[in-house]
Amino acid sequence: MENKEISNAVIKRLPRYHRYLGDLMAQGVERISSQELSIRMNVTASQIRQDLNNFGGFGQQGYGYNVAYLYQEIAKILGLDRENSMVIIGCGNFGRALANYQNFENRGFVTKAIFDVNPDKVGNRVRNIPVLYIDELAKFLQNNDIKIAVLTIPREEAVKVTEVLVDNGIKAIWNFAHVDLDVPSDVVVENVHLSESLMQLSYRIAEAAKNKK
Amino acid sequence: MENKEISNAVIKRLPRYHRYLGDLMAQGVERISSQELSIRMNVTASQIRQDLNNFGGFGQQGYGYNVAYLYQEIAKILGLDRENSMVIIGCGNFGRALANYQNFENRGFVTKAIFDVNPDKVGNRVRNIPVLYIDELAKFLQNNDIKIAVLTIPREEAVKVTEVLVDNGIKAIWNFAHVDLDVPSDVVVENVHLSESLMQLSYRIAEAAKNKK
Repeated sequence: MENKEISNAVIKRLPRYHRYLGDLMAQGVERISSQELSIRMNVTASQIRQDLNNFGGFGQQGYGYNVAYLYQEIAKILGLDRENSMVIIGCGNFGRALANYQNFENRGFVTKAIFDVNPDKVGNRVRNIPVLYIDELAKFLQNNDIKIAVLTIPREEAVKVTEVLVDNGIKAIWNFAHVDLDVPSDVVVENVHLSESLMQLSYRIAEAAKNKK
Repeated sequence: MENKEISNAVIKRLPRYHRYLGDLMAQGVERISSQELSIRMNVTASQIRQDLNNFGGFGQQGYGYNVAYLYQEIAKILGLDRENSMVIIGCGNFGRALANYQNFENRGFVTKAIFDVNPDKVGNRVRNIPVLYIDELAKFLQNNDIKIAVLTIPREEAVKVTEVLVDNGIKAIWNFAHVDLDVPSDVVVENVHLSESLMQLSYRIAEAAKNKK
């Protein structure tokens, strides 16, 4: 049992390492020094060394990092070496867009079903994924090993559905609804609040305009 | 001219204040103490006071905050008091989902056109928004006052289109492409890397599984 506390900041940076290492592999690069990697990623070499030391290092003095090995190790740390089954709640534009995004599947995030309240949508398929009636959600979760629930529904509904999810053993929620979900401490929520992201952009535009005056 | 440096952490929290204050208004709450607000938002009252002091305070000892006034002031700080015209590059699932999302428009983020390379899509409309051919992008930007470009295209195309955007005066990019864009220092980029967000969730699932053993 390992129980080292890794900071949020490090965890946030890991997928970016994963992406850059994947690119290097695609370019046929077999090993890379922290200096070279730092230039590509626009972070300091010491940050890279520190970040990777959280997981035991991986680098060798004078040799640098073995790209394929480091890529695989980071994938393992990120839990990408196994399937993470998902359900998507809400078959609106966002739900369908996420269901159609094959890249998730390539990384082991496999959507098993989409749930909606609209009878016109129920019974359809998005790619090969069935659209089921929301009332079947609890039973579906009991009968299938689902790791992640994705919420792409309005906030009031999201709060209600979250209760069903938690009651039926879901421990990870990817939340696109514009609300902070109240969940037990063993349930993790990753929020994607798009309009808040857009507001940050708007703030920076307003700031830039002010500074120009 | 004001040039105070506000930290990124504060800017990230502002939209959340805006959301909670909007909810309070909808509930008919006219004023609120930092203590009450802190309970609702699950942050400390002193953080709220500190955050809002960056912009001059707004609170009155013994009275608290005037909800409607604070909501409006934060909206102004976030640049939500004026229209931010947008173009969306890419009329795929995500592009259409964003174009269909009326909430953005309600906050002043108005999409003027969608651009795509696919001749089958060009000439269509998403809601009332025209889909134009990507080759018309430069001219469109020259003839219209566009504040934000939204990239919902694959990474290689995103890099190329970013050059066109920057050359034609775009200063703000909302980037959904899975790549770090290289832009001049006066151009702001807000990234929404969905698969990285999903990987963070996956990491936490893997950690929880490990700690259970």
